Amino acid sequence: MSLALCGERSEQAMQRLRIELKAETDRSYDVLVGRGILNDLHREIKKIGSFSSYGLVTDDFVRPLVAERLQANLRLHNINSELLSFPPGESSKNMEIVLHLCQQLIARGFDRKSLLIGVGGGVVGDVAGFTAAIFMRGIPYIQVPTTLLAQVDSAIGGKTGVDLPSGKNLLGAFHQPLLVVSDPDVLLTLPVEARREGFAEIIKAALIADPELFSLLENEGTQLLESDNEVLETIIAKAAQVKCRVVSQDEQESGLRRILNFGHTLGHALEAASHYSLTHGQAVAAGMVVAIRFSQQWAGLGQDEVDRALALIQRLGLPTGVPGDINSESLLSALEKDKKIQANICHFVLISKIGQAVIHPISVQDLKGSLDKFGTN
Amino acid sequence: MSLALCGERSEQAMQRLRIELKAETDRSYDVLVGRGILNDLHREIKKIGSFSSYGLVTDDFVRPLVAERLQANLRLHNINSELLSFPPGESSKNMEIVLHLCQQLIARGFDRKSLLIGVGGGVVGDVAGFTAAIFMRGIPYIQVPTTLLAQVDSAIGGKTGVDLPSGKNLLGAFHQPLLVVSDPDVLLTLPVEARREGFAEIIKAALIADPELFSLLENEGTQLLESDNEVLETIIAKAAQVKCRVVSQDEQESGLRRILNFGHTLGHALEAASHYSLTHGQAVAAGMVVAIRFSQQWAGLGQDEVDRALALIQRLGLPTGVPGDINSESLLSALEKDKKIQANICHFVLISKIGQAVIHPISVQDLKGSLDKFGTN
Repeated sequence: MSLALCGERSEQAMQRLRIELKAETDRSYDVLVGRGILNDLHREIKKIGSFSSYGLVTDDFVRPLVAERLQANLRLHNINSELLSFPPGESSKNMEIVLHLCQQLIARGFDRKSLLIGVGGGVVGDVAGFTAAIFMRGIPYIQVPTTLLAQVDSAIGGKTGVDLPSGKNLLGAFHQPLLVVSDPDVLLTLPVEARREGFAEIIKAALIADPELFSLLENEGTQLLESDNEVLETIIAKAAQVKCRVVSQDEQESGLRRILNFGHTLGHALEAASHYSLTHGQAVAAGMVVAIRFSQQWAGLGQDEVDRALALIQRLGLPTGVPGDINSESLLSALEKDKKIQANICHFVLISKIGQAVIHPISVQDLKGSLDKFGTN
Repeated sequence: MSLALCGERSEQAMQRLRIELKAETDRSYDVLVGRGILNDLHREIKKIGSFSSYGLVTDDFVRPLVAERLQANLRLHNINSELLSFPPGESSKNMEIVLHLCQQLIARGFDRKSLLIGVGGGVVGDVAGFTAAIFMRGIPYIQVPTTLLAQVDSAIGGKTGVDLPSGKNLLGAFHQPLLVVSDPDVLLTLPVEARREGFAEIIKAALIADPELFSLLENEGTQLLESDNEVLETIIAKAAQVKCRVVSQDEQESGLRRILNFGHTLGHALEAASHYSLTHGQAVAAGMVVAIRFSQQWAGLGQDEVDRALALIQRLGLPTGVPGDINSESLLSALEKDKKIQANICHFVLISKIGQAVIHPISVQDLKGSLDKFGTN
């Protein structure tokens, strides 16, 4: 017998059962920032609880620099952990790596009560977080970001995921960590270029939500890129605080969290249009430069603040414009492909002043005109 | 520079930021049971909202029997959907199939606002649900179960997942559907053996939580296995109601939801020990038989109710004992491997009377003794 296509059933004739899943949930967690605090990780873990096993997930680059030492330190405090690593770089952000990690976890007897600790940059955080999200339908994890970008941005907020051949972050989950531990001392293991990537996000945080952070960045200037800086801890904490505040109000990016996309809407389009020859930080910086100009045109951002924002981006060695070989057509086509344009409108995050974000709809015609004027040749 | 291992930081010296994620969440949803209601799916979808695209996920067996007709019916009501299918059977419950589905969704322009509809048995529900859970960090989905087992059990409750070579359901997510639509008329497309699988779970629901359902099953007897039965709708609704009630109180299996494991703790061990020559329903039935005997020994279940429960299992053509070639050692070893034994204790779901579940700890020694006595040769 088969599904009849004719006739409909009245509401009375069916049984309407209900799964009631109203709940008061609390997945709040701490983000710790401080020089040397990674030495205290054992204490923070024990505050949270005890686990059946512990897995440090890292990449082969971070492994000898940070993860092995962290493992030794945990062992000193009676926390025995397994160390799992994979090749560094964006190309490891895929499902094969996640599957391989899960199989290793199974082989080592991990279960639902095990804890994972992601130790590394954005890729490690994404891969470790997504592994934790789907292993045995979800196990707890801690983020230990070791790049500036991860400390101020990607390790906070519970977005995890991997790439597919057809695009970035197409598979993933919102899975909040139990804790984020950002120790500026581990940044010393990383080169200046990697720090610059982080500063793009720090400038973004300042521009959308923290004028004090902006002034601090202006006052510190280029010395921020040098290695041993006391001010860095304050800057990381302030930028992380912006992210914490936004995520606390909008976990799953349905509203406010979109302001974190300042510079990113066009930044992602630039990354794609450059065939990923621009780094994420460079693309975001260039995207911010265009967004700053748009902000002057559509959101009333004053000339003085435009100049200050552009000057800061330049001083930190980030791009102050779109590379000459990328034209407005290729950017519009990338925005289209990214589903950023709907009904001929693209919503941009702009700033009405330093520290104040607004969402502004821009028509494709206006966008093209402005891109031709400000953005590209 | 590297992570210093000596010296610890005082609490005062770090900045402790906080992500506040307390929320009143509501992911409640309806489970509809009724003959012919699949014809109304378009109306139920429109009640929920509108979506950017619609994807029917099914297997190659269910595709011509139900999914193609459903697609045609939806089209009649102006809902155009894409139909994606994969080979039927447990061997399709893996990450390659999920990845392939995700790539097809990308190729067909699906995005975060798309809706998936899983049309099939337990494997389809698991695969479609897990795909929805991780595609672009989670998109909405509807379950349309087409086997009795799925209608009374697996489609309800938001457990999704796939197998790894090293074990079942090792990857997955809790991802609740927006709606479950169980139409007993589509069961007519399936053979008696498949129905029998479902009855194992229906008997379980009755034994742990619904004495009225138990009486109904006793009164109806073997005719339940025949094709066109008016009573079936009532039975499905009652069994589904048990699952709805339990899941509503314990979404992520931290407490009450464990009672759904009646017959399953040993059932899973039996499946493994039989190298999956027993079906899930047969293994659960055999597991229930042992749990009923344990219930008499440890939970005060009366002889009369023991006899009634065993008689019902037998009348529906399900196993009333553990196959002779499986001994207590292999079962204990499977329980051990499944992490069901901790500190020499295994927690079993037992019943103190028909309709009343209790959790009871049994020591490995007692367990072995009882298995030798009741369970196995």
